[in-house]
Amino acid sequence: MTGKTITIDVRQDLFGANEEAAAINAAVFREHGNRVFDIMGSVGTGKTLLIESLCERLGDKYRILMVAGDLATSIDADRVAQHGVDTLQINTQTACHLDARMVRVALRDVDLSKYDVIFIENVGNLICPAGYPLGAEKKIVIVSLTEGPYMIRKHPLTIKRCDAVVINKIDLAEALEIDVDAIERDIREIDAKIPVVRVSAKTGTGIDDLIQVLGL
Amino acid sequence: MTGKTITIDVRQDLFGANEEAAAINAAVFREHGNRVFDIMGSVGTGKTLLIESLCERLGDKYRILMVAGDLATSIDADRVAQHGVDTLQINTQTACHLDARMVRVALRDVDLSKYDVIFIENVGNLICPAGYPLGAEKKIVIVSLTEGPYMIRKHPLTIKRCDAVVINKIDLAEALEIDVDAIERDIREIDAKIPVVRVSAKTGTGIDDLIQVLGL
Repeated sequence: MTGKTITIDVRQDLFGANEEAAAINAAVFREHGNRVFDIMGSVGTGKTLLIESLCERLGDKYRILMVAGDLATSIDADRVAQHGVDTLQINTQTACHLDARMVRVALRDVDLSKYDVIFIENVGNLICPAGYPLGAEKKIVIVSLTEGPYMIRKHPLTIKRCDAVVINKIDLAEALEIDVDAIERDIREIDAKIPVVRVSAKTGTGIDDLIQVLGL
Repeated sequence: MTGKTITIDVRQDLFGANEEAAAINAAVFREHGNRVFDIMGSVGTGKTLLIESLCERLGDKYRILMVAGDLATSIDADRVAQHGVDTLQINTQTACHLDARMVRVALRDVDLSKYDVIFIENVGNLICPAGYPLGAEKKIVIVSLTEGPYMIRKHPLTIKRCDAVVINKIDLAEALEIDVDAIERDIREIDAKIPVVRVSAKTGTGIDDLIQVLGL
């Protein structure tokens, strides 16, 4: 016996004046020659370790600032600071994403001309950060094989609103019995042309491919 | 060399008229004798499999309705329906959490007197669903060992706002090199008395303990 399933749509608009603030941020970043990347993804997908790997490989070439968004703690910023990179922690308390205004306020007293590259690690959430541009040149979404086989199909808007997808923790593919090709096919169904990079932030696989996608 | 870390607090209020709608839902549920549980947790933490396990063990004892919240697809509702349980899929499109009004609208044409137990699977997100009571008697948060060692410390409000914590995928503790005791200690630091249940929805470990915590 199979139960019946009813489907109901509930529309909500989560955008607004954020776009305007993002445009201002983008102009400020351009003026200071900052290359800015917004890294989003759910809790535990490996955003921080990925940024640490990028800082390790790019630290000699660029002056890097890392901006970390979290509800609480400065665990992520502290981790990245160990790599000799300046970091800025934004604690959102209850907000599930950074928005452009928060980034503007956070950077108000920062001398942006001191940095070539800014990595913004968004709050751990696969949904809302996608809807709030921050003024970065690219928004990158990190998905992890630990999120199960359906995470792409359930979040089509996130893929549509991002500029590249990183599939992280590919070293766990066998242990988790996940078909990475199937996940990439799900991404391609939503956006045929979006760059997809397979990475293991832990082993270093794919980090150079990601650097190429970022144009760094 | 260690970079400097600046910490900035950004306060936002995400609540509002939701509390009122939740109180109405709770009254309606009481009137119909429904025991309602709101199951929240991030993407891929195993909410659906956990509800499937509960339906398998409780399906003979109770008439169950499962309400699934997702941005898109009815994958979760369809999975649970295979267990002979009626299901209702709410597609939130862009909203990162269910709210009490969505649940009220979704249940408007449902004969609630037909059900003893209602499991509401919230949208996959460890943050916002905690701030929006739906009128359920208990809100249960599922965390998974795949989310890494810091997920509790970064989300203190989620623990504070929930009535029980399920630590899922404990079968992966060794493979992921995660100390489950340390995670439980982090929970206890935030709320010394909250029930914590260690579960593997995959192997069935701990499901009976969870049923006891739910009072079912």
